[in-house]
Amino acid sequence: MEFQAKDIAALLGGTVEGDPEATVSNVSKIEEGKPGTLAFLANPKYEHYIYTTGATIVLVNEDFKPLRPCPCTLVRVKSAYDAIATLLQMYESMKPKPVGIEQPSYVSESATLGENPYVGAFAYVGRDARIGNNVKIYPQAYVGDGVTVGDGTVIYAGVKVYAGCVIGKNCILHSGAVIGADGFGFVPEGDYYKKIPQIGNVVLEDNVEIGANTCVDRATMGATRICEGVKLDNLIQIAHNVVIGRNTVIAAQSGVAGTAKVGENCVFGGQVGIIGHLEIGDGTQIAAQSGITNNVAKGSVLRGSPAFDLPYYQKCYVVFRKLPELYSQLRDLQKEVKDLKAK
Amino acid sequence: MEFQAKDIAALLGGTVEGDPEATVSNVSKIEEGKPGTLAFLANPKYEHYIYTTGATIVLVNEDFKPLRPCPCTLVRVKSAYDAIATLLQMYESMKPKPVGIEQPSYVSESATLGENPYVGAFAYVGRDARIGNNVKIYPQAYVGDGVTVGDGTVIYAGVKVYAGCVIGKNCILHSGAVIGADGFGFVPEGDYYKKIPQIGNVVLEDNVEIGANTCVDRATMGATRICEGVKLDNLIQIAHNVVIGRNTVIAAQSGVAGTAKVGENCVFGGQVGIIGHLEIGDGTQIAAQSGITNNVAKGSVLRGSPAFDLPYYQKCYVVFRKLPELYSQLRDLQKEVKDLKAK
Amino acid sequence: MEFQAKDIAALLGGTVEGDPEATVSNVSKIEEGKPGTLAFLANPKYEHYIYTTGATIVLVNEDFKPLRPCPCTLVRVKSAYDAIATLLQMYESMKPKPVGIEQPSYVSESATLGENPYVGAFAYVGRDARIGNNVKIYPQAYVGDGVTVGDGTVIYAGVKVYAGCVIGKNCILHSGAVIGADGFGFVPEGDYYKKIPQIGNVVLEDNVEIGANTCVDRATMGATRICEGVKLDNLIQIAHNVVIGRNTVIAAQSGVAGTAKVGENCVFGGQVGIIGHLEIGDGTQIAAQSGITNNVAKGSVLRGSPAFDLPYYQKCYVVFRKLPELYSQLRDLQKEVKDLKAK
Repeated sequence: MEFQAKDIAALLGGTVEGDPEATVSNVSKIEEGKPGTLAFLANPKYEHYIYTTGATIVLVNEDFKPLRPCPCTLVRVKSAYDAIATLLQMYESMKPKPVGIEQPSYVSESATLGENPYVGAFAYVGRDARIGNNVKIYPQAYVGDGVTVGDGTVIYAGVKVYAGCVIGKNCILHSGAVIGADGFGFVPEGDYYKKIPQIGNVVLEDNVEIGANTCVDRATMGATRICEGVKLDNLIQIAHNVVIGRNTVIAAQSGVAGTAKVGENCVFGGQVGIIGHLEIGDGTQIAAQSGITNNVAKGSVLRGSPAFDLPYYQKCYVVFRKLPELYSQLRDLQKEVKDLKAK
Repeated sequence: MEFQAKDIAALLGGTVEGDPEATVSNVSKIEEGKPGTLAFLANPKYEHYIYTTGATIVLVNEDFKPLRPCPCTLVRVKSAYDAIATLLQMYESMKPKPVGIEQPSYVSESATLGENPYVGAFAYVGRDARIGNNVKIYPQAYVGDGVTVGDGTVIYAGVKVYAGCVIGKNCILHSGAVIGADGFGFVPEGDYYKKIPQIGNVVLEDNVEIGANTCVDRATMGATRICEGVKLDNLIQIAHNVVIGRNTVIAAQSGVAGTAKVGENCVFGGQVGIIGHLEIGDGTQIAAQSGITNNVAKGSVLRGSPAFDLPYYQKCYVVFRKLPELYSQLRDLQKEVKDLKAK
Repeated sequence: MEFQAKDIAALLGGTVEGDPEATVSNVSKIEEGKPGTLAFLANPKYEHYIYTTGATIVLVNEDFKPLRPCPCTLVRVKSAYDAIATLLQMYESMKPKPVGIEQPSYVSESATLGENPYVGAFAYVGRDARIGNNVKIYPQAYVGDGVTVGDGTVIYAGVKVYAGCVIGKNCILHSGAVIGADGFGFVPEGDYYKKIPQIGNVVLEDNVEIGANTCVDRATMGATRICEGVKLDNLIQIAHNVVIGRNTVIAAQSGVAGTAKVGENCVFGGQVGIIGHLEIGDGTQIAAQSGITNNVAKGSVLRGSPAFDLPYYQKCYVVFRKLPELYSQLRDLQKEVKDLKAK
């Protein structure tokens, strides 16, 4: 399909600067822009590419002031980043979606599938599972006994959902995600550890996205709960009985230990660790590789392991980087004071 | 099934305080306690819930002294945490277990299955594999050529066990665990890296639990060995030729590099890293996110990256948090000493 | 098969010290050496084992000077480590390789398989996939629509390759690896996050090895690219639009955030984190658990989180470990100066 600059501007509520009939049929990155494609410029770091890009049309923020003439037609919009997301969603929604039941697959007789399902080859749907409408279950995925899956959810190849878990509507679960494996619970008995059976489950509410190879463990009792709109990146560990509040976003390889309660609208960088049984207030932001060892007040911004206030952490780290110098200055001072005292 | 307080007390060797005929049919968390359920109180942090819980019976430690009247019947036991583990194990053991061979599945003609097997749909059992009695192999699991699996072991959906590995009795392997992938071994050859084939295997001894998406690599030669009773949480990396000693417990996202030898009864927090070729003594405890770069004596308690003695690390970190203040105090002193010298 | 010391020496361009007709049929580690096996000694840390090893032949570096007589025949070679790699490769190459199409498997009618394929049971090859010669696709692996796989590549059990990705020649993908899941891209829209569809792909060039449960996300637009000869260990996260330069080697559990560009011939330890949009120069070496938050010049050697020059980091950390002492010395000095001033 082809689009003209004026159509794109109309669609996004923007304005054209250049040829309103410039035509594109695909998208590209601004640094790799090719004729016939649309690119975007949101991060000022990439501005220099716009003066040489081969892209035919570039989406820019409405306040963008070029330093030199651009070789392309500009479409000015409120937020170029937002606009490209909208266009990509349109592009994505026009792609054909898989549908039908591939064979061999295994759907238990007591399971129910909604309308318009896709069940890929070698996928498994257990006893009494309840699958909503327009659900896509890709090849080799496993939906255990008694699992419910809401309308519009996509379960990619090889996802494993253990028995009894609940998946909301319009969720996306990426390959290798494991939902509902046993929480890590043991009682020491002498030298040996006795397993505490984990009889709870996992609830993913609506619009949750779970990254590849991320694990959400089932609760000991009750539920491990991932609330509406939460986005978890790849290789994340969510332990038993954790609650992650609405619209919280967690980057790859972070881990949240047992029974911790994370608030709404938090943002965690990658490789963050949260100790068990803590409460993390709404809107908390945590820098990558930080370790949280105490409860956190609403709206905190943290760094370090153990973490504390980020700007103050930076100051401490600046001095950390001067420690050898500081150490020798202290030695010098000690000598000077000794000399003074001797006088 | 229903149980009365007096039955539960008898079973656990405890005493009833309240109505001995109070009846429950399920369990719940104390903070979500519902009528007809049994909850427990082990962590003092949760004590306040006992004064308002809706649970009918609560298990408490025998020395628990309520500050106010509790709305529930108490069953006092030596250790409430231990007792709930026992009850959950009874509850779990009464659940029906899967049994039989689902189709389609793939069991090589030269493989042998023990008594009372479960082989889920799309599971794969390779040539000459030897599977013990009462082994449960869930859907889409892969048991490679020549693997042996001991009696009573559970292999959840999608576990991958490479050729030639040995799995003991009564082990539990959670979804996505990969046992026996190649160790990470290369020889530089100019700029390029030449692969060192990894011809050893992995041995999991009896009563080992392996978390979801955890990886245990095969040895270059010989075996990577996970000794009896070891519990590994999710997303852990165990490199080639590592040995993990009996009853050691490792939390999620930790990694142990090649040929390291970890002692018995160690406890590692999450996201810990151990450098290769080290020896970690028995009973070592390592705080989350620590990095171990030297051999560790028996019974050490460590923190930091690189890690050292935990209580001393805490002291260093207290001063780290005062570094900006310390820095300006040093500057002040320098000035004062300069003034003194000028006099 | 049996080999004599003189044959091995001839093959490796080495010399025999001891019985040229000493015969071996297998390999072993020097510390577990058994009669009839060949071991090697490369790391001086293991030298003491050579005086008591049960191995019949030991490969040593040509400049090895035994302190005492060795009970075995020595074969001296330029590099024992290199030589064992060569021998193991020969050993490996003689092993029979799986071949043929196991049933049930799913190969789309529009897919093409090259010569001499292996497609394991429950493997899935999607529409229009192009599979080269001598490719091994193990059971339960998933090769999505339109994927191309180069000659000689091995895809182990349960690997998932999303639609449209490109895998080069002679690559090895270990179980649980996920290639081409969506990059983690969202636009905030009030409290809520709107997904940015990820319409790019992943390109693995030739001779790339991807560890178990490692994730390489597809690009938003364009490609996430893993260049020729790169070796990624287990449980690594490579985010969307990242480029990893030729022959770079990354240890387990490291993560590289979106659009970062890592140079050639870099070496990263385990659990390293790289912030998004950075450029890491060729030949950079990063110590385990470090966090990189700025661009890195060619040939840097780094440690810490945030990381800086490694030898200087070690110096800072030495003082960090003396901070309590330094703190009390500063207190003492303050007192002394106060006393001096009072005089």
